[in-house]
Amino acid sequence: MNQLGVVKRTIERADAGVVAHLGKFGAATVHEAQGRTGLLKPYMRPIYPGAAIAGTAVTVLLHPGDNWMLHVAAEQIQSGDIVVAAVTADCTDGYFGDLLATSFMARGARALIIDAGVRDVKILKEMGFPVWSKAISAKGTIKATLGSVNIPVICAGALVNPGDAIVADDDGVVVVAADDAARVAQAAQKREDLEGEKREKLAAGVLGLDMYNMRGPLEVAGLKYID
Amino acid sequence: MNQLGVVKRTIERADAGVVAHLGKFGAATVHEAQGRTGLLKPYMRPIYPGAAIAGTAVTVLLHPGDNWMLHVAAEQIQSGDIVVAAVTADCTDGYFGDLLATSFMARGARALIIDAGVRDVKILKEMGFPVWSKAISAKGTIKATLGSVNIPVICAGALVNPGDAIVADDDGVVVVAADDAARVAQAAQKREDLEGEKREKLAAGVLGLDMYNMRGPLEVAGLKYID
Amino acid sequence: MNQLGVVKRTIERADAGVVAHLGKFGAATVHEAQGRTGLLKPYMRPIYPGAAIAGTAVTVLLHPGDNWMLHVAAEQIQSGDIVVAAVTADCTDGYFGDLLATSFMARGARALIIDAGVRDVKILKEMGFPVWSKAISAKGTIKATLGSVNIPVICAGALVNPGDAIVADDDGVVVVAADDAARVAQAAQKREDLEGEKREKLAAGVLGLDMYNMRGPLEVAGLKYID
Amino acid sequence: MNQLGVVKRTIERADAGVVAHLGKFGAATVHEAQGRTGLLKPYMRPIYPGAAIAGTAVTVLLHPGDNWMLHVAAEQIQSGDIVVAAVTADCTDGYFGDLLATSFMARGARALIIDAGVRDVKILKEMGFPVWSKAISAKGTIKATLGSVNIPVICAGALVNPGDAIVADDDGVVVVAADDAARVAQAAQKREDLEGEKREKLAAGVLGLDMYNMRGPLEVAGLKYID
Amino acid sequence: MNQLGVVKRTIERADAGVVAHLGKFGAATVHEAQGRTGLLKPYMRPIYPGAAIAGTAVTVLLHPGDNWMLHVAAEQIQSGDIVVAAVTADCTDGYFGDLLATSFMARGARALIIDAGVRDVKILKEMGFPVWSKAISAKGTIKATLGSVNIPVICAGALVNPGDAIVADDDGVVVVAADDAARVAQAAQKREDLEGEKREKLAAGVLGLDMYNMRGPLEVAGLKYID
Amino acid sequence: MNQLGVVKRTIERADAGVVAHLGKFGAATVHEAQGRTGLLKPYMRPIYPGAAIAGTAVTVLLHPGDNWMLHVAAEQIQSGDIVVAAVTADCTDGYFGDLLATSFMARGARALIIDAGVRDVKILKEMGFPVWSKAISAKGTIKATLGSVNIPVICAGALVNPGDAIVADDDGVVVVAADDAARVAQAAQKREDLEGEKREKLAAGVLGLDMYNMRGPLEVAGLKYID
Repeated sequence: MNQLGVVKRTIERADAGVVAHLGKFGAATVHEAQGRTGLLKPYMRPIYPGAAIAGTAVTVLLHPGDNWMLHVAAEQIQSGDIVVAAVTADCTDGYFGDLLATSFMARGARALIIDAGVRDVKILKEMGFPVWSKAISAKGTIKATLGSVNIPVICAGALVNPGDAIVADDDGVVVVAADDAARVAQAAQKREDLEGEKREKLAAGVLGLDMYNMRGPLEVAGLKYID
Repeated sequence: MNQLGVVKRTIERADAGVVAHLGKFGAATVHEAQGRTGLLKPYMRPIYPGAAIAGTAVTVLLHPGDNWMLHVAAEQIQSGDIVVAAVTADCTDGYFGDLLATSFMARGARALIIDAGVRDVKILKEMGFPVWSKAISAKGTIKATLGSVNIPVICAGALVNPGDAIVADDDGVVVVAADDAARVAQAAQKREDLEGEKREKLAAGVLGLDMYNMRGPLEVAGLKYID
Repeated sequence: MNQLGVVKRTIERADAGVVAHLGKFGAATVHEAQGRTGLLKPYMRPIYPGAAIAGTAVTVLLHPGDNWMLHVAAEQIQSGDIVVAAVTADCTDGYFGDLLATSFMARGARALIIDAGVRDVKILKEMGFPVWSKAISAKGTIKATLGSVNIPVICAGALVNPGDAIVADDDGVVVVAADDAARVAQAAQKREDLEGEKREKLAAGVLGLDMYNMRGPLEVAGLKYID
Repeated sequence: MNQLGVVKRTIERADAGVVAHLGKFGAATVHEAQGRTGLLKPYMRPIYPGAAIAGTAVTVLLHPGDNWMLHVAAEQIQSGDIVVAAVTADCTDGYFGDLLATSFMARGARALIIDAGVRDVKILKEMGFPVWSKAISAKGTIKATLGSVNIPVICAGALVNPGDAIVADDDGVVVVAADDAARVAQAAQKREDLEGEKREKLAAGVLGLDMYNMRGPLEVAGLKYID
Repeated sequence: MNQLGVVKRTIERADAGVVAHLGKFGAATVHEAQGRTGLLKPYMRPIYPGAAIAGTAVTVLLHPGDNWMLHVAAEQIQSGDIVVAAVTADCTDGYFGDLLATSFMARGARALIIDAGVRDVKILKEMGFPVWSKAISAKGTIKATLGSVNIPVICAGALVNPGDAIVADDDGVVVVAADDAARVAQAAQKREDLEGEKREKLAAGVLGLDMYNMRGPLEVAGLKYID
Repeated sequence: MNQLGVVKRTIERADAGVVAHLGKFGAATVHEAQGRTGLLKPYMRPIYPGAAIAGTAVTVLLHPGDNWMLHVAAEQIQSGDIVVAAVTADCTDGYFGDLLATSFMARGARALIIDAGVRDVKILKEMGFPVWSKAISAKGTIKATLGSVNIPVICAGALVNPGDAIVADDDGVVVVAADDAARVAQAAQKREDLEGEKREKLAAGVLGLDMYNMRGPLEVAGLKYID
């Protein structure tokens, strides 16, 4: 992992239909359906509320204060991709702004996930290009050091392989391995199917204690009610 | 404090009329009126801007990564309550989402204050169920360990007893002891009564230096004006 | 620096026309045009999104938990000023609320930049008085200790001299030395002039790799493409 | 709680013999024996390694940047006491140095627990006066604002009542309610008695898996061994 | 990655001789020799200064507040191993103390690397069992939830596969892929061989500017000397 | 400030005798004597305890992940200097190790103050070369981007001009303006002269309450004693 100076041009992307299916459920449900794995650290926040996307990862490894590889990554973007950028050390610089966003959008990118900072956030919102990042910063970067594109990266604590499915919304960002995406989508669908009925019951005042049959286990565990 | 495995069913709630009165003033004024105590740490932020509520505390003590007791707490909620959840160790997991919110709302809860994370925040906003939390995270929790309900808890650095009045808005969250709520409401009213006049004067260009008679004390303290 | 108990009444403000010119470009462009200096730390965030201002600095040095000097500063405000407040130690207290904002607005202030907390943020938003701060907190302050007004201060890691130009928006806050403001505005204009054309090309699908002639340097640096 | 301007002179201290008994076990064992409650947040660190103490709490509530009440507290110290200092807002200032330590030692204090900063740490180490604090800072404080002595305080996330038993070592700081101290000491003794035998077995190569009979529960839980 | 409830018994360990060779160079040199990759985040600190080790990774994936899998891992330890423990969410609890250390040592473990907290640190130091951790905390954990042993884990931002070489000292912790360890050891040896000569020259007052021939490149880059 | 690509060769250093005098008092006393200004943020910690130094500042402005300018700075070091390094953005990389330390020591440097990370800390301790830093990290840096030497820098929140006096010990780091150093040394001497007598009284059991005549002011402020 982390080889520097390499661009992989051919990657296996998760199936587009499966990715779209995953996108219907949102990050929380997908994370749960996948066995509670694949979540990026919760410091990754959307730069504006309300965006919800799914796509396939084009990965980038960057150096602190240097966004050269984002330009290299742009060429590898295909329609439906999401660029996932990791940095070799903690950095809050603004690696990405409206010009790169224009280029990424023209290439068909749906979003950027970056474990660092971005800028021009007001314009990005107006353009409708969603970003999940660690920071917002007006500080620009230089273009001097090689990183890599489409190698496995660790972004905000999660391993992302090129082609993996990414689901992101106001709750955070989840990665699903490309070859596991179909299974996870089915599991998510199953969870979702059960939720509608539960929601109705709870709305009617039924308690989770009863709906989930928790009273027995709670008593066994030793819960005591006092007045 | 912190006994595990106990649910207290009967608690003394702050008077509903007094709580409503407190709610008119907002967290900053109530905190000031109370003698600048009772504020939860400022890392507690609303999941969406603009909500402003007051209610009586149903307290919960949770374990890291385990939301079992929120289901137990749901049964203890009465109309006008606010659930205040503490965790025995720092944790950012998403303990609470739209299903629990549906249940809490059906029971009459007005809000959740939780020293941890929540999820489904977009839906919570649409439902109009306000939450003040330390984090937003798609990561769900398990249901395996007993905590307690309606015991005194320390939530984000403040002691909250069951039945205490809670006032929360964009400025933060304040707790007022149930038996002190009436006194604090009166003190807050007094502050508020004085503010209207002050605001008018300041808007007209009168300086706080003059309105508060600060020039003398500043001179005594040794302030020097130079050109 | 940091003399306590001094108020400087006469300061050299950056030229109003130049400041207005700087304001057109936003924090990111101005920071870049200035040679990537002058940025306040990225933890300084607007209390509501969308505000974008430029003005001249009236500086204040405060003590932890004490906002006395903000009242002293109010008298030194002229139309078009921005109050820039530093604190002698890390503090998140709410130093500033709607009353002081009313006073500042009446004096012609355009914004507050404070390396600490503020409160009444909902009202401040309604009033349209923008603030960039480190925190939001309902906790008020006392008025007991002398600080200074219009001395050089270090605010969120940047040196700000009274009269300096301040540019702030959703990307952050930048300070430009008063006597350098005209040069920076010209440099920013030059950057901006070039951006329109670039944006069009990128939107048409031209890659930054080609537009910026990066392919040669990348090859020299050793970048390898693999399949 | 948190009444300002009050000094309580007579407090019920935990029994000295019981406190000494607790001190033999250390913070980790006492915390466990107490049912895993009463731990101050782990950011509370000793200013030098190796100190291990137990004593009875004299509590102090301080304001940011103001150590006046530590002088007031000194008079309330009896032999065997530990001063536990909370602050009304986050602050890293150096509230305490070698002069106050000299005074505290002369009064019989065994240690200081402070949710803020201290200084003169090299001399404190030479004096053998242990401190657990959030920070070390050369920044001194003023003496201007009333706090309180011997009221209940929340120090680093834990409620401490005057007279409570405090146990602190390299693992952290634990508080035990005065009237619960004897029970906790017994429970700690019981844990300790069992540990010696366990340690011998583990040293001989016996696995916890076998010693604690975990293999069955692990299998029930679904653990799978693969090659 | 991150499959839960799995223990892999047979893993390919990096060659013991190569690991010993790597251990001579220390974390900084190995990290550099490897192309500046594989470093765990710098918040991972030794619990006592001076320890310096190298070994092969037995990996563990834990849940917040639950150390059950450390007991399962103990059985998989072979002489020369280092246990590398990741947690599915941020947690500072004390997962590991003197009893588990006794067991790990009896099995031949050389150290523990854990992205969480540990306790009994004074005894661990006396036992000479080094630990690199995120925190020290007296708070114990429960044994209730399955994790996994010897699966790939992300520990403090770095991917660690079972059997990888680990090098740790006061500068931090570095992971080297098992099949790359020999190459990295050679590269580290080469760096080390050159350092002795450099050190002598620098000690004699030769400047790095001259020894590394930096003056030309600095002039080309535009460095200006002024008086 | 912050001009890039400039090395100033001639700077006005604080008088060596005055600097030596300041060094006798330590950071806390000097900070106090100077009117409680000039302290670097308390996150700046010594890499080993016990070092206490004073010297004159050679300043360096670095970029994230790039230590080129430390080599340039080495040439500007004179006997008795302390290198003070700031970075244009937050960074924890290890900019400095034993080779650079060897060079700095050969040039007569007494210490390094760096708002970033260092490595080889075990060797640095053996060499007796003290460092105050924000972090320890095995991650090395590149040599690619110009910064500056001997310009004013903001290091850990404090303005440092080349030639300023620096005093550092276990309590932290303080900067004193070169032309103010003599005055501050005298004020520190005066404080120190008074402390011996105070220490004796306090050791004899006299209370600060009486020694500083605080009882009156406390009563005026409203302090109440209860039983």
